[in-house]
Amino acid sequence: MKLQLALDGNLQDSLAILEAVSGIVDVAEIGTPLIYREGMNAVRKIRERFPTLTLLADFKIMDAGEEEAIIAFDAGCDFVTVLGVTQDSTIRGAVAAARRFGKQIVADLMQVGDPVKRGRELLNLGCDYLCAHTAYDLQKAGESPLKTLKSLRQELDHAPLAVAGGISLSTIDAIVTLQPDILIVGGAITRASNPSQAALALRERIR
Amino acid sequence: MKLQLALDGNLQDSLAILEAVSGIVDVAEIGTPLIYREGMNAVRKIRERFPTLTLLADFKIMDAGEEEAIIAFDAGCDFVTVLGVTQDSTIRGAVAAARRFGKQIVADLMQVGDPVKRGRELLNLGCDYLCAHTAYDLQKAGESPLKTLKSLRQELDHAPLAVAGGISLSTIDAIVTLQPDILIVGGAITRASNPSQAALALRERIR
Repeated sequence: MKLQLALDGNLQDSLAILEAVSGIVDVAEIGTPLIYREGMNAVRKIRERFPTLTLLADFKIMDAGEEEAIIAFDAGCDFVTVLGVTQDSTIRGAVAAARRFGKQIVADLMQVGDPVKRGRELLNLGCDYLCAHTAYDLQKAGESPLKTLKSLRQELDHAPLAVAGGISLSTIDAIVTLQPDILIVGGAITRASNPSQAALALRERIR
Repeated sequence: MKLQLALDGNLQDSLAILEAVSGIVDVAEIGTPLIYREGMNAVRKIRERFPTLTLLADFKIMDAGEEEAIIAFDAGCDFVTVLGVTQDSTIRGAVAAARRFGKQIVADLMQVGDPVKRGRELLNLGCDYLCAHTAYDLQKAGESPLKTLKSLRQELDHAPLAVAGGISLSTIDAIVTLQPDILIVGGAITRASNPSQAALALRERIR
């Protein structure tokens, strides 16, 4: 099980947090807000400082799948996200780019009506991971990705799964039981008073 | 009727095209691929050179509505886009940011199952424009935004509407008949051998 750190702040803070935790997390996610702020400059700066770290660009691609995925892969990313709600032709384009670069596509299931049905389609289209993701804007209302993760694990038992949405020390155990392949944490590390201690404590639980 | 130019290439080319057409178009759109490449650096560079031009950031916001909209408005954008398929709480956050900055939200109806029903909800949530948008990846299959635009115009007759998706000299007349408030053109101007001539020819048709 891999631990992915979502970086949604500014570039300076993100680099400082990575200095502290790059040896503890497996994947660094350049989050959507960080991409909006800095574009691929964020990827290049992080890649330059951490040449062997696995990087994911949370593009949430909705259109121009091939063209947009290439932007991330060209800049040095290993993974890029697409939205599961988008049309199949966009997914196909992003997957084609990933195959050409030897990289991977994570399909985010946010707002997908039937995650199991659409998840199966997304895997058939060539996506490498399905991500059960509770939106940041829904976490405030107490929602969690646990239910979606559970049905994906039950119905698509060999599917590579990622999970995101407010995961912290108090919720991680129930998630780990369902054996996702990638566990994505943001604020529980980036907003901790001691990010490396927080990352180590989470890491302990997923061994 | 306003003419919006979608800039999806790199920053240098986009600035060169704007030099040629800034007096002909009403709104310059910093397209999603340009945002992925350059982040808000693109907005700042364009704003610096064209201080009075209306700017739209095609963020296609899917989550963290308030936080992400603020990034665009802070950088000097007048409009930012949200995806109509996202949850209401995200729309509400983006609208709250727009009201605070005195700016506007365009809701992109791509992949929305029932554009009239969802369009009405999005207007009630405070979105300023609805955009009938045929994905780039679907234009190759011959799809156009005409049908969606027509039903929106019929059912929501006073709604401020935008329209995008492969609009060119050969398709513009049918679109203009439906009186959208914003007509979005990309490749028909940016890939023309003479962008200002192409923009003027389109402009003629929408008077």
